[in-house]
Amino acid sequence: MSAPSRGRVVLVGGGPGAADLLTVRAVRALQSADVVVTDRLGPVDALAELCPGTEVVDVAKVPRGPATPQEAINELLVRRALAGEVVVRLKGGDPFVFGRGMEEVLACRAAGVPVEVVPGVTSAVAAPSAAGVPVTHRGLAQGFSVVSGHLPPGHPGSTVDWAALARSGTTLVLLMAVENLAAICAALQAAGMPGCTPVACVQDAGSGAQRTLTTDLAGVASVAAGAGLRPPAVTVVGDVAAFAATHPLLAAAGSAR
Amino acid sequence: MSAPSRGRVVLVGGGPGAADLLTVRAVRALQSADVVVTDRLGPVDALAELCPGTEVVDVAKVPRGPATPQEAINELLVRRALAGEVVVRLKGGDPFVFGRGMEEVLACRAAGVPVEVVPGVTSAVAAPSAAGVPVTHRGLAQGFSVVSGHLPPGHPGSTVDWAALARSGTTLVLLMAVENLAAICAALQAAGMPGCTPVACVQDAGSGAQRTLTTDLAGVASVAAGAGLRPPAVTVVGDVAAFAATHPLLAAAGSAR
Repeated sequence: MSAPSRGRVVLVGGGPGAADLLTVRAVRALQSADVVVTDRLGPVDALAELCPGTEVVDVAKVPRGPATPQEAINELLVRRALAGEVVVRLKGGDPFVFGRGMEEVLACRAAGVPVEVVPGVTSAVAAPSAAGVPVTHRGLAQGFSVVSGHLPPGHPGSTVDWAALARSGTTLVLLMAVENLAAICAALQAAGMPGCTPVACVQDAGSGAQRTLTTDLAGVASVAAGAGLRPPAVTVVGDVAAFAATHPLLAAAGSAR
Repeated sequence: MSAPSRGRVVLVGGGPGAADLLTVRAVRALQSADVVVTDRLGPVDALAELCPGTEVVDVAKVPRGPATPQEAINELLVRRALAGEVVVRLKGGDPFVFGRGMEEVLACRAAGVPVEVVPGVTSAVAAPSAAGVPVTHRGLAQGFSVVSGHLPPGHPGSTVDWAALARSGTTLVLLMAVENLAAICAALQAAGMPGCTPVACVQDAGSGAQRTLTTDLAGVASVAAGAGLRPPAVTVVGDVAAFAATHPLLAAAGSAR
């Protein structure tokens, strides 16, 4: 009888970037890893300290730049696990929030590789939080919608109904939306969302380089362009955005807020 | 000259329940606390190990049972911090996702008390994840909406447009919705969401008592009632719910999933 293989894959949510926003379970997974497969969205800087000497494979997917196809990542995870290794796939945020995590889970299952998912702090909530913006607030928002903005409204590949979202009554949290911000905000206004709706764009949230642009729906496209907003950035559309520390509405409201 | 007070308040997201899903930053905050103010939604069991001997004040808010009014909680946080103590307010999930966190932040600011927010793993993502359900998935969902179901559709206090959400194209994640599940699902169907839309209800997610009910939009009210679904539970409505480990559609699809 041979001993059962210890090979397995652990998808780990790395949180919004700061090493201390990893969960305890994530830290333990990293410390048990034979190999860590990561990309630019994970808290890569933490690895040298958390698991010194552990092999790190970078499969960075730079937008429109050189990238490792998802299929190649899946194949890598499966191959290393079948070879008996504990493979940690470290992702930014949560593995199941725009992380293509389920595709990796399905690839592992299809190959008979045990796979586990460690949830993480999602940037969709943490980035607004870092700018002082709660995605819900009593009396203002009884829900929030997290939407990828990587496709513009009306794109044949888009399954998002922006007009419906404009009327949903929820705070809108837009990820990967910098490039299509003007088109998205125009669609929201065309659907009846007031141009004076507060908007906050949080770039490089939680890092020393964090900055927040505060404006409104009618002005956000020009403000973002003028300020040179660039990824990674999270945009919040809704009354709660007025809580952003630098928001003009906040300044106007003074100590009442 | 007197030394400046060290009194402050730290709102800490405790995550979905398991102690090891606290972040490293949350653990450090708990270990530095003079007093921890918590309720039944926080990972209370972890406190005895993480910060033995630290005073714990329970302000449990049982639905429709005895509760500490929010104003009394705010007053407690401010009073203890002004007395020079490091006060950790431990909450379930993330402080800004239905946690009334911003109300506590505003109360602290109004009193001149320094206040910090430590984001946490939200149950809105982690509970579905624990049942094998990704809130987003390439080709199925380019976004997700997290909505409180504590008010039924049409309630004068509700600011949520359920018909718009039904058309949004996002995965719907319903929190605090057990009591109004039938009314909510009826409203979604009335707005055109197909009765065959997959639904998964995850009760006591991440604990040893976790169970998942899998059904569809047309059947969820009777299935939940028949199975005695009770809080805390998270309900996922959308194609991704078919990924739940026990889902009939998953069984039907066999190894393709």
